Amino acid sequence: MLAEATRGVAVESRHLGSVAVVDADGRLVLSAGDVERPVFARSSVKAFQALPLVESGAADGFGFAEAELALACGSHSGEPEHVEVAAGALARLGLGAEQLACGAHWPLHGSSARALAASGQAPSALHHSCSGKHAGFLCLACARGDAVTGYLAPDHPVQRSVTAAIEDVARHDLSTAQVGVDGCGAPTHALPLRALAYGFARFGSGAGLAPERAAAARRLMKAVWSAPTLVAGAGRFDTEAMQVLGERAFVKVGAEGVHAAALPGLGLGVAIKIDDGAARAAEAVMAAALIRLLRPDGDAGDRLAARARRAIYNASGEPVGEVRAAEDVFDQAGSGVRG
Amino acid sequence: MLAEATRGVAVESRHLGSVAVVDADGRLVLSAGDVERPVFARSSVKAFQALPLVESGAADGFGFAEAELALACGSHSGEPEHVEVAAGALARLGLGAEQLACGAHWPLHGSSARALAASGQAPSALHHSCSGKHAGFLCLACARGDAVTGYLAPDHPVQRSVTAAIEDVARHDLSTAQVGVDGCGAPTHALPLRALAYGFARFGSGAGLAPERAAAARRLMKAVWSAPTLVAGAGRFDTEAMQVLGERAFVKVGAEGVHAAALPGLGLGVAIKIDDGAARAAEAVMAAALIRLLRPDGDAGDRLAARARRAIYNASGEPVGEVRAAEDVFDQAGSGVRG
Repeated sequence: MLAEATRGVAVESRHLGSVAVVDADGRLVLSAGDVERPVFARSSVKAFQALPLVESGAADGFGFAEAELALACGSHSGEPEHVEVAAGALARLGLGAEQLACGAHWPLHGSSARALAASGQAPSALHHSCSGKHAGFLCLACARGDAVTGYLAPDHPVQRSVTAAIEDVARHDLSTAQVGVDGCGAPTHALPLRALAYGFARFGSGAGLAPERAAAARRLMKAVWSAPTLVAGAGRFDTEAMQVLGERAFVKVGAEGVHAAALPGLGLGVAIKIDDGAARAAEAVMAAALIRLLRPDGDAGDRLAARARRAIYNASGEPVGEVRAAEDVFDQAGSGVRG
Repeated sequence: MLAEATRGVAVESRHLGSVAVVDADGRLVLSAGDVERPVFARSSVKAFQALPLVESGAADGFGFAEAELALACGSHSGEPEHVEVAAGALARLGLGAEQLACGAHWPLHGSSARALAASGQAPSALHHSCSGKHAGFLCLACARGDAVTGYLAPDHPVQRSVTAAIEDVARHDLSTAQVGVDGCGAPTHALPLRALAYGFARFGSGAGLAPERAAAARRLMKAVWSAPTLVAGAGRFDTEAMQVLGERAFVKVGAEGVHAAALPGLGLGVAIKIDDGAARAAEAVMAAALIRLLRPDGDAGDRLAARARRAIYNASGEPVGEVRAAEDVFDQAGSGVRG
């Protein structure tokens, strides 16, 4: 049991799952649950997917600055700031929202969605939480002279280079991996949680990566740290975690209960999968993992503690329970020990 | 494993839980998982909570018709129809939305929320999914001459009679039960899933209930069957299930993965708890249970089958996976057999 939701003094719901903490040499430092079972990485690996964009010179060629790179690594909430950066990125390519193949959905940020509706508008692909990643894909296609249509096909040159980057960073062959279609239409591969954590250890530390890849990873993390609101949004976990931890952690959510982080100063990568796909549990467990590994104090410690054990309020604003990580996340049956 | 979410051909997430099918004599007819562990009933028992409203004559005294009774049993989506019925119920009491103690939230129905925002309004307590239940509580308080403030306190006469009704229908003593505060501020009790299912068997069949209680239960179910959009809303599971099954089933969701049903023609009650609280899994398992127990054919069978195995679409409208009940929900370790 990795996390639970309480109501009053009783436990109401329970979340199972797995956690892997791996160092840059691939050693499993801490773990809980089954870390060898493949899980779809979903949006947790957006920063890996953005590596070719930087390494190829495509980003520089089209004047993508820190904001565009941060959004390319992000799963944003569709706030006006996010939409503006996505639109600006496309404008640099001479393209419009109609070239984005991610589809459209209402902004995840409730008041932004309501403001959009109040203005009489419907959401466009710019509001999709993955529009920054897609603008990055299109930038890479433009720089290479590839077709900008069909850029999500697994055999399109953009996806080939993106998949190769994930394989290299995680040191894991994806040629026989399960491939699914993500919520934005992009391919998503299943890889063991242990490999995902290993990838984050390497991405964060640069250890074992080619120099230009390590530099690109560093540049992408710096871009996110310079604008953590672009990687998620107001009130979101990843944004707050990086606002309080700064360069101590690069944190990224994926759908269906996936969460991953790089801790560059420690040379560690963290990957979490909640079996049932619940984001609330993944966030609580990630907060607990960041507290255990980084031991933040002061405001950073307080705010992460409030995420590891998060109050549930009812519609009257009364606290009625909490979502909390298990006390013993890393001390359960099957857990590893510091090697 | 009661349900799973797939992506492509791979299973991405898994949901554990319990199911109890009990007859009106209290026999466990079918089961999966632990049916003795107490679970918070949440909104699944709204129809039980509405029994005193009918039995006391309060509903008739204030001219509550089928619509008001259906809404009292419901967890509505805050669509204009729901808000209108709730406002009308309060008007009959000479009260306004400010007397509702449920708090306010944006309508669950997305386009209703956006339309409300576009009109420059904020949600009131009328939009809360429990506003119909609260109007019923207030009606009972008015009829008794009780204070209309503080009607959610466990020792308020309204809650005493409501709790006594749940205890009687489920034949389960709640005096030592865990009590939590629901999302609308009302007390919610934890009772074994088996007792919850037993309560639905008795509520649906009337067997073993006092005649006036059995008649009130029948009247409440008839009210919901006459307007199934009031018990939930557009696109919602409970509404669709009763639209296609008619009087063969009374189906009611509760928060945190609780779902319950009465099958009056069979004299059975069904109660489900998904351990992690996921509504998507509870709905799929309920659909599978309704198919197994009622064997609906034609359109009813097709539509329930589409709920037991529901496609997941991405933002482009492409099917990318499905949420599906396990094939063997009732044939897992620990399952009972028809007694």
